[in-house]
Amino acid sequence: MKTERQPGTLARVLAAIAEHGANIGDIETIAIQPDFNIRDVTVIAPSEEAVAGIYEAISNVTGVEIVTRRDKVFHKHEGGKIATVSTVDIRTLQDVREIYTPGVARVCSAIAADESLADRYTWRKRTVAVVSNGSRVLGLGNIGPAAALPVMEGKALFYPVLVGLNAVPIMLDTQDPDEIIETVMRIAPGFGAIHLEDIASPGVYRIETELDERLSIPVMHDDQHGTATVVMGAVLGAARKLNRPLEDLVFGQVGLGAAGSAIAALASRFDFASVVAFDPGEHAVAHLLDRVEPDRRRDIQVGVTDEDYADVIAQADVLVMATGRPGLLSPDQVRPGTVVFALSNPEPEISIQDAEAGGAAIAADGTIVNNMLAYPGLFLGAIDAGVSMITPEMKGAAAQALASLAPKDALLPNPLDEQVHAAVAAAVQAAAAQ
Amino acid sequence: MKTERQPGTLARVLAAIAEHGANIGDIETIAIQPDFNIRDVTVIAPSEEAVAGIYEAISNVTGVEIVTRRDKVFHKHEGGKIATVSTVDIRTLQDVREIYTPGVARVCSAIAADESLADRYTWRKRTVAVVSNGSRVLGLGNIGPAAALPVMEGKALFYPVLVGLNAVPIMLDTQDPDEIIETVMRIAPGFGAIHLEDIASPGVYRIETELDERLSIPVMHDDQHGTATVVMGAVLGAARKLNRPLEDLVFGQVGLGAAGSAIAALASRFDFASVVAFDPGEHAVAHLLDRVEPDRRRDIQVGVTDEDYADVIAQADVLVMATGRPGLLSPDQVRPGTVVFALSNPEPEISIQDAEAGGAAIAADGTIVNNMLAYPGLFLGAIDAGVSMITPEMKGAAAQALASLAPKDALLPNPLDEQVHAAVAAAVQAAAAQ
Repeated sequence: MKTERQPGTLARVLAAIAEHGANIGDIETIAIQPDFNIRDVTVIAPSEEAVAGIYEAISNVTGVEIVTRRDKVFHKHEGGKIATVSTVDIRTLQDVREIYTPGVARVCSAIAADESLADRYTWRKRTVAVVSNGSRVLGLGNIGPAAALPVMEGKALFYPVLVGLNAVPIMLDTQDPDEIIETVMRIAPGFGAIHLEDIASPGVYRIETELDERLSIPVMHDDQHGTATVVMGAVLGAARKLNRPLEDLVFGQVGLGAAGSAIAALASRFDFASVVAFDPGEHAVAHLLDRVEPDRRRDIQVGVTDEDYADVIAQADVLVMATGRPGLLSPDQVRPGTVVFALSNPEPEISIQDAEAGGAAIAADGTIVNNMLAYPGLFLGAIDAGVSMITPEMKGAAAQALASLAPKDALLPNPLDEQVHAAVAAAVQAAAAQ
Repeated sequence: MKTERQPGTLARVLAAIAEHGANIGDIETIAIQPDFNIRDVTVIAPSEEAVAGIYEAISNVTGVEIVTRRDKVFHKHEGGKIATVSTVDIRTLQDVREIYTPGVARVCSAIAADESLADRYTWRKRTVAVVSNGSRVLGLGNIGPAAALPVMEGKALFYPVLVGLNAVPIMLDTQDPDEIIETVMRIAPGFGAIHLEDIASPGVYRIETELDERLSIPVMHDDQHGTATVVMGAVLGAARKLNRPLEDLVFGQVGLGAAGSAIAALASRFDFASVVAFDPGEHAVAHLLDRVEPDRRRDIQVGVTDEDYADVIAQADVLVMATGRPGLLSPDQVRPGTVVFALSNPEPEISIQDAEAGGAAIAADGTIVNNMLAYPGLFLGAIDAGVSMITPEMKGAAAQALASLAPKDALLPNPLDEQVHAAVAAAVQAAAAQ
């Protein structure tokens, strides 16, 4: 942006941007000339539609000219967001002889004689396959494998950045659960864990269960268990803030899709007074009961009728909603003093403001559920423990670690704090050792 | 190694090592004390068996003590040889919003509307899947996917090191060609090229052909075409050294396995006086004729009888052998003034010394065939050209580039010279544009 050197010019630009509901990011001065300045201004627009209006508004400010425009999100995605590198120095042909032909043959022979050595002498034990067919991408639906790749690259890059693991997106060109199972089984020898992401339910339930049983490496569907771990961390954090023991609280879950059923199942392992849940679908309810431990089933009530729904709303001290139905809960339905998490994206079942207006002690929406808080530490802990499954105990331990690390003014810790992930992994590893 | 500070001690150690036919690598002084030194000595042993003898010989030198011993090849393989990294800076939660939720959804939507944008906004176009089931690993045979992974990591790491591409080993737990085809088809949406490696023939012929036809990205079986490109580069280099035009030379190929048939097929595209070939197997001969262009078939003679073999030996000015039969050729069978490449590993059909004793003008064995000279540039050239196949013309252009870059005293250039790979890629891209 080129602006005349007249006091007040930049202020008028910022005012024009603000009128469109947009926020200002960094402002960088590129050049200062006798009669004009050039600045790089980052604008965070509220919507795609607002962008054109913002450009027009800036152009209309006297003495201002837009030199170039760039979509920062697309710019950051140019060429992708991950890369592979060599971890060994290759400077001489002797180096080549040691890491490639002929030296490598000795390492291959050793692994052929004892396959467990592959975990030591290759990258596989510390490499996670992030597997998706793009059939259920958050907010976008079934967009297929190529269009879902930017999400999987995002998931993958947090592994090296946050916990020092490797991760590779594997984009599957099939919608058939049996083919997905078969394909993952076939590529499994090169990986140390399978992270399933954005695959449609109910197929993904069987995909996860069968792969976890058949493979000797951890398998986890992040949309279920990563989400459940983070939500449970926030719930435990909320209970702590309110200074209420779990034994005093009824946990209510409305909506038993992939995330909701995993949240309710994980909640059933904690010492809530009881767990009550509702979903209009018989299958969803049956699926939840399937995954609750037999000795916990007497503590959980699940229903499909309108009365069941009213019961959950009436009883829950902690109410978690994952229904995909914006505005489902009105402020007068909120029980004063309770915790309300309305998680549907992009529009929640009730806004934070409305929930608080209705008397909620603590309210949150889907923006609190940042799965990058959970999955890196869950996989690192399981890999370091050398276990073949990520059990509910490990997820519960991860949730408690998250709650214990939340700062005073928040339900959950900062996901860019590496110590958080180390603590989650340590908690998972400790739970695995029990 | 701890040695007394007496002049001559180190010399006695090196002499003891030399007696076992071993070479000395780096010698690093770790500590110098009043009465002893500690040094790190790298010894390149001729065989696994020699190692124990070398340790004993060193221990027997007066005033010498071995402090620790380490196998350098295994040490370099600890934890594997490749890693994934993020290529975007993640310092703030605003960064997270741009490369992950919610920003990434805009990129996904753009790709869902126009899939070709995935080549621009993800890593896939510049990422090669190095696919193997470990069913035919050089010198080791069918060792399976886990044991073959160190080789594939070696193949993969040269992509970022030499040509700036990414590469991911995909280890397949199946020996069935149809399942391999099916699996690669299913994972293809996340990759820009398929590098097939160490998969048994004849199955791999169909795997390569079918994948190349069905996928819109380059597919190449390196054991065939990488090898053929390098060998042809060396043949062209040899002809140049002898100052003989190809038109004067009969090219002879003995052994038409995966590598041999690819070499002969590639040779048939150059202007040799003629191409003669021999293999005892009818299938191998038929396979070669299948892959020779129809208008070149009259220039190629292929046979399966002992007489055919004798004809090839008698006629060839350039004789390439890839038979797996050590010592097949005796010095008196070498035609004086010819070029003899005896490529079988680890023992050649005739040693360089014997071939030269028999009068060969230029002789070489399998150690000249370093595929890392060819495959990185072949794939980079094809990817940069945006083509869906690596054609014989591109392989021929790559071979010519290799020959033209060889220094005076060698048949082929140094594989660690990055300019070589850039030149190969440029030649491939130019050939693709014709």
